[in-house]
Order: sequence, then C-alpha cells, then structure tokens
Amino acid sequence: MALNILVIGGVALGPKAAARAKRLMPDANVTMIDQGTYISYGGCGIPYYVGGDVAQMDGLRTTNAGVVRDEAFFENVKDVKAICHTRALSIDRRSKTVLVENTQTGEQSSMPYDKLVIATGSSPRIPPIPGNDLKNVTSVTCLEAAQAIQQQCAANKMEHAVIIGAGFIGLEMAVALADMWGIKVTVIEMLDQILPAQLSYNFAQIAKHDLEELGVTVLCGESVKELKGDENGAVCQVVTDKRVIDADQVIFSIGVTPNSKIASDAGLLCHPRGGIIVNTHMQTSDPDIYAGGDVVVVRNLITGDFAYLPLGSMANRQGRVIGTNVAGGQATFEGVVGSWCVKLNQMYASGSGLTLRQAKAAGFDAIEVSMEGADKAHFYPGHDNASLNIVVDRQSRRVLGIQGMDTDGGTIKARTDAVAALLQSGKPTIDDVSNLEVCYAPPFAGAMDVINAVANVADNVVKGLHKIISPDEFLKLWENRAENGYFFVDMRPTKRGKPVEERHPGEYLSLPLEEFKARKHEIPTDRPLALVCSSGTRAYEVQLKLREMGMDSVNCAGGFTTLRKRGDEEKF
Amino acid sequence: MALNILVIGGVALGPKAAARAKRLMPDANVTMIDQGTYISYGGCGIPYYVGGDVAQMDGLRTTNAGVVRDEAFFENVKDVKAICHTRALSIDRRSKTVLVENTQTGEQSSMPYDKLVIATGSSPRIPPIPGNDLKNVTSVTCLEAAQAIQQQCAANKMEHAVIIGAGFIGLEMAVALADMWGIKVTVIEMLDQILPAQLSYNFAQIAKHDLEELGVTVLCGESVKELKGDENGAVCQVVTDKRVIDADQVIFSIGVTPNSKIASDAGLLCHPRGGIIVNTHMQTSDPDIYAGGDVVVVRNLITGDFAYLPLGSMANRQGRVIGTNVAGGQATFEGVVGSWCVKLNQMYASGSGLTLRQAKAAGFDAIEVSMEGADKAHFYPGHDNASLNIVVDRQSRRVLGIQGMDTDGGTIKARTDAVAALLQSGKPTIDDVSNLEVCYAPPFAGAMDVINAVANVADNVVKGLHKIISPDEFLKLWENRAENGYFFVDMRPTKRGKPVEERHPGEYLSLPLEEFKARKHEIPTDRPLALVCSSGTRAYEVQLKLREMGMDSVNCAGGFTTLRKRGDEEKF
Repeated sequence: MALNILVIGGVALGPKAAARAKRLMPDANVTMIDQGTYISYGGCGIPYYVGGDVAQMDGLRTTNAGVVRDEAFFENVKDVKAICHTRALSIDRRSKTVLVENTQTGEQSSMPYDKLVIATGSSPRIPPIPGNDLKNVTSVTCLEAAQAIQQQCAANKMEHAVIIGAGFIGLEMAVALADMWGIKVTVIEMLDQILPAQLSYNFAQIAKHDLEELGVTVLCGESVKELKGDENGAVCQVVTDKRVIDADQVIFSIGVTPNSKIASDAGLLCHPRGGIIVNTHMQTSDPDIYAGGDVVVVRNLITGDFAYLPLGSMANRQGRVIGTNVAGGQATFEGVVGSWCVKLNQMYASGSGLTLRQAKAAGFDAIEVSMEGADKAHFYPGHDNASLNIVVDRQSRRVLGIQGMDTDGGTIKARTDAVAALLQSGKPTIDDVSNLEVCYAPPFAGAMDVINAVANVADNVVKGLHKIISPDEFLKLWENRAENGYFFVDMRPTKRGKPVEERHPGEYLSLPLEEFKARKHEIPTDRPLALVCSSGTRAYEVQLKLREMGMDSVNCAGGFTTLRKRGDEEKF
Repeated sequence: MALNILVIGGVALGPKAAARAKRLMPDANVTMIDQGTYISYGGCGIPYYVGGDVAQMDGLRTTNAGVVRDEAFFENVKDVKAICHTRALSIDRRSKTVLVENTQTGEQSSMPYDKLVIATGSSPRIPPIPGNDLKNVTSVTCLEAAQAIQQQCAANKMEHAVIIGAGFIGLEMAVALADMWGIKVTVIEMLDQILPAQLSYNFAQIAKHDLEELGVTVLCGESVKELKGDENGAVCQVVTDKRVIDADQVIFSIGVTPNSKIASDAGLLCHPRGGIIVNTHMQTSDPDIYAGGDVVVVRNLITGDFAYLPLGSMANRQGRVIGTNVAGGQATFEGVVGSWCVKLNQMYASGSGLTLRQAKAAGFDAIEVSMEGADKAHFYPGHDNASLNIVVDRQSRRVLGIQGMDTDGGTIKARTDAVAALLQSGKPTIDDVSNLEVCYAPPFAGAMDVINAVANVADNVVKGLHKIISPDEFLKLWENRAENGYFFVDMRPTKRGKPVEERHPGEYLSLPLEEFKARKHEIPTDRPLALVCSSGTRAYEVQLKLREMGMDSVNCAGGFTTLRKRGDEEKF
C-alpha cells in the first residue's frame, strides 16, 4: 500500500516538505491542500513587488526558470497533487483523516492520511481598535492584498499611508511606498524604537534616520487608538495617543500569530501563547503529524526558551527536514538562534542572537559594544563604514548576539552569518570572535576584519581597559553639560573638531590625536571628560594616555560616524 | 625597571604587536626596528595601487584618518620607538640582545630585550632559472617594487608582462596590469590549474575563463626554463617547456618563504621546511621570544598538520595576541582553517578549509559537490548565480572545505565565513551546513540560502540519491560520445535545448522538465544517460523519475550555468 502523505498549507514549508517527501519516496501519494488561490509564492517578496523591483506579481510565483508554480506545475513536475480553495477544518487523529471544505462550493469531505504535515502558517495580527475593518485598511501577507495596494499606487489613489508597527514588513513596505511611489508614509511603533526585537536602541536610531532621509515619518512610543473613515467607509484618519494623521491607506504590521488552532483542537501539544510544539524531528505530540514554519514554536538555542520565528528561510529549512522524516528519514532541526536581515533605504541591517534587552531579560549579565569599521580595506575605493554591535555576557565573556548596519548588504550578512554559525554550534566567547578566521583581501574587508575588531573592543571593555558609553549616553552628557560639568575632547582632525570648539568655547576642545603629546596640558584636569573621535579608535588611544596621567574619561562608541548616521551631528 | 619589548619587523604583525603591548603596558619601552624605509604599509594593497584603485602609494601607508604611519607617527601617537634602515643580524638569547646593523651606514650595535617579537615576515621565492636577475624581473612584495612597476606602466614602457605563478598576488597583478593599463599579460602556472592550493579544478576553469575575458593569457601545466635579456640587460623573452613568449616585464609570484633564519640560527625550534614553530600563545621555544605572521608555521585545525599561511589578516590577529602576551596577558591563537578570498576580473572567489586534493592528501575519503544557486532571491533584481563547492568526507559526513565564486564579493564572503566559523569551532557535518541559520531577506539571499542548498546536494549525493558528475567529467563524456555511446538529455526550456538537439540529432534530446511526463518515452532505454539542465536542480528531479523507471543516469553539477562560466558552452 502506498503511503498517504497529506500536507495542509501550500506556501513555503508545505511545498518544500511535499516535494522532498515525494522525491525520497516516489511511490507515496503526496497531496497538498491550500485554502487560497495562489500557492508556493514568495511572500517575502511582496514589498519588492509593491515597490516595483519585481515587475509582475507572477514573479513571486515562478521558479528560477520562469515557470509558475501552480497546481499543474506540482502535478506535472513534482508529482504532488496540489488542491487549492480547500480549507482544513479539523483533524481526526483516530481515523487519521482531515475534514476539509471547498471554499468555493462549501462542500465538505474527508481526506485520509498516514503522515500529516501541518503547514498552516500564520495570520497577521489585527489590533482591536475601532475602524480596523474600514476600506483600505489591510495587512500585507497575501498576494491579493499586495496586488490591491499596488493597484492603488499605480492608479495614483494613495497619498498618505500609515504603517502601524515597525517590524520587517512594515519597514519594507514603508520604503516601497515612499521610494517607488512618492507616497507620504508614516510609521507608528508603540515601543520606543523601530525593529524592537532585532536592533539595539542605538542602531534603531540609525535605521530611523535612514528612513527619514527618504521622507518617511517615524513615530515611536506612540499608540494607535482609532481609525476614522470617510463617507465611503474608507479610512481617512489615524488617531494616536498624541495626534491625528491623515491616511488613505493603513497597513498593519504588528506581527503574526500561528494558525495552530486546528492542532490544539485536535489535542496536539501547543504553546500557551499559540504555536505547535514539535521535537527536533519537527514531529508534534502525535508521531504521525509533523508541523513547521510559521505555525510552530521552536527552541532558542541561546536561551533554551521557546521562540517564535516566522521567517521564510526557517520554513524552507524545516520543510526539507519534515520531507525527509515523513518519508522515513531521521533529519533533525535543533532550534534557532534568530538570524535576520532587512534592507531599509540606503542601509542594510542584519543580526543574529539576542539584543541587549533580550539578553538581560534572559538573565544574562549582558553589555553591548558598538563600533564603526571599514567594510573593505580603507584604501580600497568604495569602502564604507560598517556599524557593528556585539552583545556579550560580562562574566563568562560569552557572545550572545550581533547586529550590523551598512550600505552594503553582503558586508553585514557575512559578519552576521559567521557569528550565527558560532552561536548555533556552541557557546562562543569574545575570543572566538576575535580570532574568527574570516576571509580577507582588500576588496572584501580590512586586514583586521570589522567582526574581529568589534570583539576586540568588547574584550577591552570587559577587561576595564576601554571605558565606552553609547551614543545615547554621550548625547545625554552633551545635552546636560551645563549641569554635569563635563568637558568634551574631540580627537578628529582639526578641520572637523575646530568648528565645534569655536561654537562651544570652554566646553569642547579640538585636539587631534597626533597633537596629543604636545597639547595634552590643554585638557582640564578638574572636570569629568568625554572623548569623541571619528569612529572611537583614536579616542581610545587618548583614553589610555589620560589614564596613565591619572585622568578618567569616557569614550563615545562609534564616534561621529555613528552620530552622523543617526542624524545627530548637527547637535554639536 | 621598565620592560624592554623589542619587535623585529615593522609591517603588519610588528606594528600591531608593538602598539597593543604599549597600550596594555604603558610604562614599557617598546621599540620596533625594520630594515626598510617604509613601515606599517598594506602590502596586500599593492595590486590596487598598480591597478589605479589606490591613487597614491602613500594610500597604503596611511591610517583611516589619512595620517602616514611613519616613524614620527609611531613615536607621537603610539609611543612606540620605530627605527627604520635597521637590520637584525642575530639574537643572543643568553645576554638577551639583538645584534643590529644600520643598512645605510653599516654600523653595528646591540639592542637589549626582555621580550622579543620576531616579525621578520617572508621573502618571495625566486625560481633558480637563468635570467632571474635581469632588469624588469621582480617580485611585488614591497612598495619600492610596486612603485617601479607602476612607473613603468604610467610611462607606457610596458607592453608584454609575464607573471610566473598563479597565486593571489600573481592573479591580482595580472588583472591590475591588463585592466588599468591594457598590457598584454600572460600568466604561467606550473601546476594544472590556477590557484591550485585554493580552488577546485572546476572552479579554476571558471576563474581562468574570467581572466581570459579580460584578455589575459593563462597557461597551466607549463614550466619556465629561462628568461632571456636584451642588449641592455632587461628581460625580453620568457622560455617555457612549450614556447617562447615576448616579455618586457616578468613578475614572480610563486609564493614566499619565511624569514626564519635568524630564529633557527639562534636555536629556536623551526619547521624543517622553514618557519618558526610557536605554541598557542605565539611563543617560540624560548618563552621570552614570540613570533607571528609570515615567519611562523601554525596548526591546521582540520588536518592537525603544520600549515604555512602568510596572509595579512593572520598577521593582524596574531599581532594582537602577541601584543597581549608580551604585556603579561594570556591570549591564544589556536590555529587556522585556511580562509582566503580574491577578486579576479568580474568574479570574486573565496574559500575556507581543504580543497578536494588537500582533503584526499590528508587521508580523508573526500568528495566534492558543486552547484549553482541564486545569490539573492531569484525574483530580486540584480541577482546572479553563485557557484559553491563543498568538500566532505563520505563516511563521516564531515565538512572539510568550501569554495565560492560570484560576481558579488559579499555573497561569497558571507557563505565562506559562515562555514569557516563552523570549521574553526569543531567538526561540522553536512547537516550543520544544511541547517546553518544564515540570515535571509530577498535582497540578501534566496529563502533556501545557497549555502544550505549546496549542503543539501551533498547530502543527497552522499546518500546515493543524487548521482552527479563534475563538469569536467561531463565534458569528457561529451567529447567521447562516439565511443562511449552516452545519450544526453537537456532539461532546460526548449529555446535553450532545442538548438543543441538540432546540431546533434540522435545524441542529444531537449526535454524540458515540465514536458517530462508527456515525453519520457523519447529517452532511449538502451543507452547510458547524461543529464544536464541550467543549474543541476531540474536534472536531479528527472534523475529521480528515471530511477523510478529503472533507468540510471548521471547529472552534470552546475549544469549549463557552470559550463557557461567556464567558457565551455560553445562545445555543444
């Protein structure tokens, strides 16, 4: 008897698992059902379709060879029976059947399985506020919604878009709408920074400034209370706890929730906050039922806690594991460390592991250290400064996370992926990253790679050799200088530092590193000192020399390079 | 009493160790001597200076802030006494002194040390052939030689350059001379491929073709016998075992040898083939003497053997370790896995770990698997196919090495560095790379990252599910088709495959994957089958279907994408 493998869900994980299972077990009957019209599309590409990078919506549904992945494709090429417009209503584990409903006719029927794969994905969160069901209020998680928005843009019917929630899709959509269509975009985030689960607070300011450079308004720490509609039932205003904003399009991007109800209804073990719990074989509490992708919770390998990480790349990797296992194999998926990346306006951002806040919440004695370093040899044309931030546990020197931002995506992917590999394979220390043998040639990196360098800074900081403060702490010292009495010393070349000194006599001294020996007596000995230079390196040298002279100081991490990227240079 | 720290050698490792030691131990006397005029320059940047990317030679000697790193810089900024034109002649370990000679006056003197750092680097290998001392015959390892070549180019005095040895510097110089100056360049490599210690044979063909596209002539498996000079004593011809080539410039690039004689003369433990042996603290057999950079041999973490890896990035990382340790710290450098990268013409190449040949030589039951995969989401504009090659041990499934080539440097650096991190931290298996949690968004990668994908292919190959052959094996089958009776099936779209079929009726069938079910009877059942498609993926699907039908076949790794990159498409 041929094995019946039934897959519920036809996007990302479902097709991957189905096709893999069929390849490994050619005599199995593999069936994949989906409630929608479109299957096996690249949902992550939606912002690029709206933004015009992907010219046709079908571009998100085609193979590398340009063939659309529809039911016929799965039938012909993959030998997988794909059935659209078919919703799974319930699972009967005793009879090993799934009750399904044709979404067009309402007809119900029962489908048998020997092995079942739940790939029902997730649904966008909709905030429970008045007006959330108005016209032109949507989430962008399916092709139909993407197409509707794209058509609104193309018909020149959108002027003010408000995006609620500053996660990946929200920011990608903000860039797509503002860049391609010149739409006035406002992003509203309830928490105090954008990408709150991914970026350090400092890097979030860089990201925010990058979006603002495109004309996007970013409002953090602000809650949406209500959406107001016009006479046609279309949204026209967004009311927050601080203001009222005109809007003819509202996009919710406050995350997704796993579609795990069908699993919990069937008695499968689920997380209290939703999401199916699976073992390392991606098996649910019923050994004949597997689940993966956006519908499961997985193990965070750093904290040991459950994690919810709805990403297309996860779905693909897990899909292969499930495909192998339903066909009798023994593949495993051990857990996640939380790697991510996103393209903003001019900047790319990426990260892996924990942010400082997450690390502290998980009980680590964590600090973060950020720096600026050349992404290619500093003499190589076209190099730029990459910003890196490393999160470490002070006592154990364990590395817990990394984040990067640069104008070159490959640059930060390289550094992030290397640390991700370490995080995935053990408990790396600062020294492991200091000596990480990343590849080097001038068109790729500096001879001391920026990833080695940020670990070196962390080493110096943890050992008490280097006393740095974050740009936010530095800015606070600067703003309150009348009260705190701090004196500021700038180690950049004269043409950079002197104009600031001239604007702030008695508070600010331009003292290029090269002139330190000759002019060190100009630094007051009776005031607390804050140092700053271009990237943090030269001020570190001066800090050590001052310490030798018995003088304490703090150094602004990333220096004016970071301050400039944040849009804060003009405060000096 | 202040500690005397003496550093012999002022490039890369020397300055790094000296500056770090001084920062950690401000009251030490740190002295750095060098026999040359220039110190602390970026030797890896020489090809970019010759090729015009770096406009001024001083660009290789300046800090990020544009300050030249000369003796005054080290004195003023680093508190390190740097002394040029001073050659170390011998080390007296009992009196703890170094006998030095002023290279300008010949005056000798003795310098005391408490801790000594040997950073004498390496010297270029000069082949023992007649004419190796002619005018315009050089190695490009110092700024003076680089400047001489650059001036020859700028004065339009160079027409035919011959580069002997196809390692990094040789190829970078070939590109610099051909691209910037339009010089006719010939590269001669004694072994059967370029970058023999770095690339798979297949990828070496891609690299060769990339150089040929720039007009560079690449001759492999050819030995230089003699250089002939003109009446002025300048080189005019290169005589190989196969031909005579006109040349008005010859550059040796056949590697370097460690300048470890001063160490072996002093009785320090050295490798029989040269290179100081150090422990993980970078300490020589004399605990007061440290060494690093191009002058030492280190441990290969994969094979356990000694390795010689003269790279600027190594020198920088080791320099920090030495600086820490001479100042009383306990930093370690465990060994190397051999990460590298290089920019060729349009292509970038990188790798880490062992090549197939190295793996077999080290006793592994190794195979290699190569593939083509999109470097960004295949719907994202500007994506290209990255070529990846993974070397694995068949029995243990251990990953031993990775190589990549792409038109985007960051793409392959990312994949290489991630695997390098795994290689450095243990004995990764195919599964570790399959599930490597690299970051994903469409502008950075495909949802199934190409690094995960190449491991998946290796998994299928090792399990016997996927029977691939290398492009070279495929080409051999094709060339000998009259004798071996192979029948070739092309799964690409009709417009790609049909023209080939029409040129080779009875030998070649165009059968797009989508039409397989309907037309499978067109495949002869009585002949051995070789499959090919665009990247290898679709032919794999067909191979499985054929197996179900009881038919065996082989699939060309990387398909026509690799064949095209090698310049072999026109053979069909």
